[in-house]
Parts: sequence; C-alpha cells; structure tokens
Amino acid sequence: MLSLNDTICAPATLPGTGAITLIRVSGPETFAVTDRVFRCSRGSVKDASGYSVLFGVIIDEASVQDKVVDEVLVSVFRAPHSYTGEDSVEISCHASAYIASRVLELLCAAGARLAEPGEFTRRAFVNGKMDLAQAEAVADVISSSSSASHRVAMTQLKGGYSAELSSIREALVEITSLLELELDFSEEEVEFADRNRLRSLLVSASGRVRALADSFRLGNAIKNGVPVAIVGEPNVGKSTLLNALVGDDRALVSDIAGTTRDSIEEHVTLDGVDFRFIDTAGLRESSELVEKMGMDRTWKMLFEADIVLAVVDATASPAASSAFLKKLTDRMDFECQQLVILVNKTDCNKNVNDINNFVSSIGSQSVVLDISALTGAGLPQLRETLASLVRAHFQGSSESILVTNARHHEALRLAADSLDAALASLSSGVPSDLIAQDLRTALYHLGTITGAVSNDEVLGVIFSRFCIGK
Amino acid sequence: MLSLNDTICAPATLPGTGAITLIRVSGPETFAVTDRVFRCSRGSVKDASGYSVLFGVIIDEASVQDKVVDEVLVSVFRAPHSYTGEDSVEISCHASAYIASRVLELLCAAGARLAEPGEFTRRAFVNGKMDLAQAEAVADVISSSSSASHRVAMTQLKGGYSAELSSIREALVEITSLLELELDFSEEEVEFADRNRLRSLLVSASGRVRALADSFRLGNAIKNGVPVAIVGEPNVGKSTLLNALVGDDRALVSDIAGTTRDSIEEHVTLDGVDFRFIDTAGLRESSELVEKMGMDRTWKMLFEADIVLAVVDATASPAASSAFLKKLTDRMDFECQQLVILVNKTDCNKNVNDINNFVSSIGSQSVVLDISALTGAGLPQLRETLASLVRAHFQGSSESILVTNARHHEALRLAADSLDAALASLSSGVPSDLIAQDLRTALYHLGTITGAVSNDEVLGVIFSRFCIGK
Repeated sequence: MLSLNDTICAPATLPGTGAITLIRVSGPETFAVTDRVFRCSRGSVKDASGYSVLFGVIIDEASVQDKVVDEVLVSVFRAPHSYTGEDSVEISCHASAYIASRVLELLCAAGARLAEPGEFTRRAFVNGKMDLAQAEAVADVISSSSSASHRVAMTQLKGGYSAELSSIREALVEITSLLELELDFSEEEVEFADRNRLRSLLVSASGRVRALADSFRLGNAIKNGVPVAIVGEPNVGKSTLLNALVGDDRALVSDIAGTTRDSIEEHVTLDGVDFRFIDTAGLRESSELVEKMGMDRTWKMLFEADIVLAVVDATASPAASSAFLKKLTDRMDFECQQLVILVNKTDCNKNVNDINNFVSSIGSQSVVLDISALTGAGLPQLRETLASLVRAHFQGSSESILVTNARHHEALRLAADSLDAALASLSSGVPSDLIAQDLRTALYHLGTITGAVSNDEVLGVIFSRFCIGK
Repeated sequence: MLSLNDTICAPATLPGTGAITLIRVSGPETFAVTDRVFRCSRGSVKDASGYSVLFGVIIDEASVQDKVVDEVLVSVFRAPHSYTGEDSVEISCHASAYIASRVLELLCAAGARLAEPGEFTRRAFVNGKMDLAQAEAVADVISSSSSASHRVAMTQLKGGYSAELSSIREALVEITSLLELELDFSEEEVEFADRNRLRSLLVSASGRVRALADSFRLGNAIKNGVPVAIVGEPNVGKSTLLNALVGDDRALVSDIAGTTRDSIEEHVTLDGVDFRFIDTAGLRESSELVEKMGMDRTWKMLFEADIVLAVVDATASPAASSAFLKKLTDRMDFECQQLVILVNKTDCNKNVNDINNFVSSIGSQSVVLDISALTGAGLPQLRETLASLVRAHFQGSSESILVTNARHHEALRLAADSLDAALASLSSGVPSDLIAQDLRTALYHLGTITGAVSNDEVLGVIFSRFCIGK
C-alpha cells in the first residue's frame, strides 16, 4: 500500500540530456529534507516564501573529497499553492545523470523516498487540485504531438470535460432524488415526479452520455493518430506512396512483389491532425507461409482503420482492379470507415473506365483520385482529401469535447446502458426503486471518470502509466 | 557574426521526455517578450521581483481554437543576478515536444530568437559571470559520469583551476615588468632585476605550468575513462574477461579463434573512477586481410592505453606465452603505461613457471594475477589492482588540479615552451627585451585558457560544442 503522507523525490526531466535536470520534492518534510542537503547564503528553504527561488549548492557532508555536488536553483512552493497541493520544491541542477543520482541519493538519505510513477499527480488528485479526468489529461498533454490532440488534451486539463460530466451527474442526481422522494411516500401512491418530465430529463442525459461515448472513436483517432490503411494488390506502389507521403525512405521499396511483409506505420501531421499511415503487405492469394501471415495482419489492420486508401494500378487490368476493390469493400464497414480509391502510376498509362464503373456501383461513399506516387502528381489533392475527411468528422461532433481515454469510454458506455435500462423501465411502469437503482449505477460509472467514485486499485493502475516525476 | 545584445530562447531540457520541459529566455527584452505570451493573475513578469516564480498560462492570441498552449511556471531572474548576467526567465511547461515548439515559436514571434548552442554560457562569459575555463567546466560537469570526473569538473567550475592560472600569470607579469623597467633604462646599463631572483621566479612559474600540462594525461583519463587495453593471443579469453568485468554479454564470445575483429569498448566504474576497457582482436600472425586490419588497430589501441592487461592462457605453452609477452613489452612505454599480466583459465590447469621467469626478467614494473574469466576467480583482485594503480597516480599528482581539456593542454604546453626559452635566454645573456617577448608569449597562451585573451573565432568554436539551451 502506497503511503501518501511521506516526502517523495524524482527527476522531472530525463537526467543526462539537455542543459538542466529538474528534481521534484513533495510532501510534509520537503523543506526540512531540502535544508539538510542545500546551502544558500540567503537563508534556508524553511524560511523562504512560496513562489521564490534560492541559489546555492547541494552538499554531501559525508564525502571527504567531493563535498559540493552541484550549484543549483531551488524553487519553493508552499502548501496548498503547489502542483501536488503539498509543500514542494523543484531543484534545478546541471544535466548530468551522475549529479542527478547523487542529489536523489542525498535527498533519500535526508528523509525522502523515490516517487512512484505518477505519484506527484496522484497526490494532486488526492489533495483535490484536479480530478481524475484532468490528471489523465496531464499525461495526454505530455504525449500530444499535433495541434488537434493538444487541443483535446488541454480542454480536458482545463476541466471542460469534467464540467460536462459534472453537469450530467447533477441532472441525474436530481432525477434520482425525485424518484426516491416518491419511494418515501410509496404507500400513499403519490406520483411526485411528472413522468413526462422525468422521461425528457432522462432522454437528454442519456443523449449527452451517449454523445460523449461516441466521441471516443474520433477522440482516440486524434490522440493516437487517425489510422489510415494503405491496401492494394502486390506491387501497385503502396510503399512508394507511403514514402512519398512521409517524405523519406522509411519503407523498403523494390520491384519484387511481396517486398513488404511486416506492416509499417508512419505518423504524418496534415492540417494540424496526426495521421497514422499503415503500409500493409500486398493482398493476394499466396502459398508462402510468411506472406500469408502478413496478409492476415493486413485484414486485421483494415478493420482498425478509419480511412482506407485502396491503391490500384492504372497500368494493370481494370477488371482485376475492380475485383480487388469488390473484395475489399465487402470487408469494410462504411458506417465508420471511409474509402479513398487511388489510381496509381498515372504517369505511365491510364485505363480505369472499369474502376469508375465499379465506383458508381458502390454508391457515392468513396473518393477516387488519380495519383502518381513516383512523380508526386495528385498527392496534394490526396493530402487535402484526408484533412477534409477528418474536418467533416470534427464538424459532425456537436460537442467540442472528445473522449480520448479507453477507461472513460468504457465507463460512459456502461452509464449509457444503465440510462437506457432506466428509460425502458420508465416506459413499462417498473417500480420507482428499480429505476432509481439503474440511475445510481449510471452515476457510479460516471463518477469513476472524475474520481468522485474511486478505489486504490483503480488509482494504482491509472497513475502507474505516468512517467516518473509527474 | 553572432549578436550578443538581443534576446534568445531555447529548451534547457530535452523536449518530449520526462514530465517537464524547461525553456530559457535571456537578453534585454526578456520580460517584454515573455509578457507578450504569458498571462498571470498575479501580474506581469516585468513587475515581478528577481528570484520569484509566477504561475500562469502561455497564450497564442492568433489561434482561434487553441488559445491556451499550456499552464506554466515562470521563474524570473533580474540582471545581473542570473546565469547569463542578463534579465532572464525559465519557463517550466509540460514535457511535450509539441508544446515546447509552440512556446518557442511564440517567443520568437514576440521578439526573441533561438539561441545558438552554448550561447547562454557564452553570454555568462561575456558578462563576466565566469571565465572560459569555468565555462568549459560547465560542459564537463554535465558530461561527468563518475565521482572522479565530477570532482575534477566541479573544482574547475568553482574556479580552483582559474585561481592557479591567475596566480601564475601574476608572477609572470611581475617578472615581465621588472624586465621591461630595465628596458626603459637600457642606455644606462642598469640591471634592476636581480638575475638570480628572476631565474628562481621563472623556474617556479615554469614548473607550475609544466605540472598543469602534465596533469592532462591523468585528467583526460579521468574525464573520458582510464583506457585499459585487453590484449593477448587469439582465444586466450579476452572477450570472456571483458564480459566478466562488465557483467553482461556485450562482446561476442565463441570458441573460434579470431571472433573479435572490431575492438569493443566498455565503461566500468571501479572505486569512483571510470575505466574504459578495450577488448582487442587477438594478436597473431595472420594472412587474412580483415583480421590483419583488426591487429593493426590493436597495436594502435595499445599505444593509447594507460594500463595494459596482457592475457595469457594457463593451459597453453608457457614458452609461447613468454614469447608473446616479450613482443608486447617491447612495444610498451613503461614511462607512462602499466602492465598487468593475467594468467587466465586457471580453472583448467596451471603451468606458468616460464611466465614467472619472464616477469622477473622485465623487472618489477608489472603485476601478475591468476584469474579465471569463466568462473570469476581472481577478478576481485584484478578490480582492486586497477583501482590502486589509478589511486597511486592520484597521490602522485601533488596538485589537486587536473587539466582535462585538450585546448588547455595545448596552451599550457606552448606556455611552458616559451618559459623554457626565456630561461635558456636568461642563462645565455640574451637581451632583456627578447626575454620579455618570450614571457609575453607565455602570458598570451595562459590568457587563452581563461579567456583573458580571446577572439570571436576561438569563442565560436568553444561554445559551439555546448548543447542548445546551455
């Protein structure tokens, strides 16, 4: 069991890189611990005011030859005005892995212990500085690599998501208390709650929960990169296309059909959105075991892609290309997947009437672009198409709040299911106490997101995913 | 030509790693630039006192969707009480590469520019916050990885080395001015300076300069690791020994003679000193080209090693081992190299009388140890021997100051040569003005170390070796 009452320390930057290493200390004994290893001509940390910086040296009293470990800056934060809500300091020392380990050893000898991953943020949560959704957003902000994923994480960190959840919870608590009031007077057969009003409140709350749950597919795509699968028969130029999009020679290209056996992923940011391009093994019947395994993986990748780039060869038989596209579209889910057909090698030849016939046969759900991965022709249009497909998604989501966390998505889904059950019960005249039970279940699931409902085991799992020093 | 009058910014930690990224801003416009991108409820940076910290947000006014870039802490340092001696701030933001680049872009849009490598430290030098030797020590402190190299770098950073140089320069300036006073009265053939006193002052100064120059071999070894070459005939167990010392399977081991063709380096810290073990290709006559190249490299490595571990096989013919040791010792320089003979495979057999005979024939300069790299027998004694060889070196150096920088070493060598020339001139009755010229040359070379004498080109080269943000 992790103690949250002692004093912890950890590097907040990667020691041994850059110019400076920052070491965080937090907990009730922070100032006493720091004063044991730090000397400053302007006085002790204990006497320094919050939000002030001291310049001095870290001293190893026990060392004979090597007393002064480093010249450092110590920033002082007094509870509750700190990241963790506890007394804490940040020690800024020279960026040497050796110095960082000496300073951490000295702090531990002086009464601190090394922090667990995420423990600083966990303490911030425990001390009410942020809720669980915000704490998880901290990790997302750190890992965000595009403006879209950054915007989503910052909205969560600033609490927009938490505010929406809290507003839904309030509405549900109101409905529940109306129902429970009825229970108190159940023998008198009074109906305090207007059933129509109850229904409309429930429909509204359920819709908001479902909207949040449904935003996960887009939120997750934005957080981890919109998955785009590049599929096609062997040797139609899939790897050449990936290289052209990425702008270097990441994929191994050759004229030998079947060159790409492992799938290759590359991230490219277009219009502020991170796309995760997945080059796949060519799809064809093969007797070779390794290549067959590659194709099994290709079909699996296909299911996970939000956008499928189907590459066909303008110089190949249009009938074969159409047959391939038919096989592909049979496996796609047009409810949540978008198809872009790329007629490649247009620099050589063009012979695609049958493809256009095929495309009209599957309706208007797909885009067809003529490209040449080799010369780069048509690639600007492809980039614009990809960006606009995601923009359309963005505009489609009425809420600006996107759920990006799988744990939250699961909780929202469970809450929405409970609300649907409550609505069904309301329609079929089920007793109020059973309806109230469903509402309390929904409240429970929503509460796990912000940590209004939490337990040590769940917290342990969440914060263990953080890095040390956060 | 690099301007040192504008405002610069750079990350001081590696963006995208750890929990926090620190961004430094320094220069006359620091506060104005920061206030353009930073909002804090407690007021502006311009009005904040030095050594204080502000909590607030970095704002991108131009962005519609994504105004708040991050929540940050800003530490404020007012000239001259900062690292650079200029107004400066340190912005502590979440450790995302995306956020770091956004913040740097905003700072640049607000009037700063990206710093060159080492530019913060260069400004500290220009503003008299540290001399050149101390500035270079900053880089050494950052890269120090053992307590010995850290101690050397900290001594330099704290100015012990600079103080010694400055004291030598003062002595030389005194001698020079005595000589130059003579020159003013040269027509009167007056000898103000007592020639014997001059000579003894010069001998003392020259000795101190030479001692500093000579400390470079040890200083460099401590900074970069004491080079220890592991040599021996093929298949005597050199790689097994390296693995045993390092404690993992770094070197490729096999029973086939000639397995190690490239030399392999591994750093191991023993007793606070970094050792750089170099496993070499087996030394034998070979007709194979690749192996021959490996052996040429082995002989080259041998010259650079401070300590040579000669491995012989206890199960092989003692005569052959002695012949090998003879060939090896003929190539060694016992003035500055130490030999340790390791009789390996003592777990199998022992048959080394001839080796002991050989050892006595080369005198007492070497240590002989029985080991088994396979079972680990004798390795604790080997580690202790290595540590004590370096300790002896340390005790041998009367000065605690060690020169670790090749540029300084060159300057000290040139200064010592000029002083020797001056001494020779003094003995042979050369006119005072020629002696003074030699002394001025020595003063010039010493001055280049601390930067008392400097030029932009030299400074450019020195600081370009620093990392960005330092």
